[in-house]
Amino acid sequence: MGKGKVTRDMILGKAAALFNSRGYFGASMSDVMNATGLEKGGIYNHFPSKDQLALEAFDFAVQTSSAEVTRHLNMQEKAIDKLMAFIDAFTSVAADPPIPGGCPLLNSAVESDDGHPEMKLRVMKAMDVVLHSVENLVKKGIHEGDIQQTTDAQLIARTFIATLEGGIMLTRLYSDLAYMDSVTSSLRHQINAIRTSK
Amino acid sequence: MGKGKVTRDMILGKAAALFNSRGYFGASMSDVMNATGLEKGGIYNHFPSKDQLALEAFDFAVQTSSAEVTRHLNMQEKAIDKLMAFIDAFTSVAADPPIPGGCPLLNSAVESDDGHPEMKLRVMKAMDVVLHSVENLVKKGIHEGDIQQTTDAQLIARTFIATLEGGIMLTRLYSDLAYMDSVTSSLRHQINAIRTSK
Repeated sequence: MGKGKVTRDMILGKAAALFNSRGYFGASMSDVMNATGLEKGGIYNHFPSKDQLALEAFDFAVQTSSAEVTRHLNMQEKAIDKLMAFIDAFTSVAADPPIPGGCPLLNSAVESDDGHPEMKLRVMKAMDVVLHSVENLVKKGIHEGDIQQTTDAQLIARTFIATLEGGIMLTRLYSDLAYMDSVTSSLRHQINAIRTSK
Repeated sequence: MGKGKVTRDMILGKAAALFNSRGYFGASMSDVMNATGLEKGGIYNHFPSKDQLALEAFDFAVQTSSAEVTRHLNMQEKAIDKLMAFIDAFTSVAADPPIPGGCPLLNSAVESDDGHPEMKLRVMKAMDVVLHSVENLVKKGIHEGDIQQTTDAQLIARTFIATLEGGIMLTRLYSDLAYMDSVTSSLRHQINAIRTSK
């Protein structure tokens, strides 16, 4: 990896942590300069604007968090067990965020929903990926005979993600994992309720 | 109501909408001046700092949103029906926010969780009120014989609020009420699952 790429990735990592913790408006280019130890020119050499840096930092944060989810999912074979692993992955993100500041999807969704159209579009696309992966796991679980045929996969996926993101919000607000534990215990119960009785 | 109080309330209403939509860092005092039509001195005459204005604007936003929830709850007599009305109230906040920008609890929780201790404390207190009111409704529902005795009221309350706030996040991200509809349909199902079979 060339020196330019190393510097670029270092800037992305530091910027992702700053924007995810303080938000796009809460973190300034001076903060990015302080965190990276680079002059403004050294940053603009790699990213033409704060906007562009924020968009790429968001992608970096999502990729890093997704890798944590994938790691949990890969430990399981069956779709219904992967659904349970999905809950573990979000609990792990709540307990020890791969990118400081919590879940980049939640943070950027809430910050961008009023009038940051380019970021909002990027969050929508990333959220689509997460929602569809849960929906597909539910469908696969039905196909594998572990989940009841009548289950509405889309409804389960939306509820699943809403509840997990809301759980992360509560756990971060109170700095107390007990909130995430309550929420995930509820979700596990909900998954058990759609199991076929074999 | 004196002229001073009228001006003060007008500033609070405009500031609440700005901060709730764009966030504390996303909205500047110049934005507040533009929205209110007042000079900087006219605003600082009522609020000593942007910080103080943001804290009081948050309280104003929470009171306004709570009034909408209370209005829905007052339409019902029994605790279990009030739980269902709580869902309607959040759906109404998602569809037509009393304060532009969505739910002030969600927005301020996500923005303040990293390093705005005074705001975070205020959000925690406001969230406590909401969580306890749901928990008390579940306990009252048990007492009234409509909810199963073994129900964990605290767990239900945390799941309820996490899911509703996550649903508002999704619905605002996609500008599509279908997400809130999925989530609330799931919650209604969950409440029916803890009903006593009378």
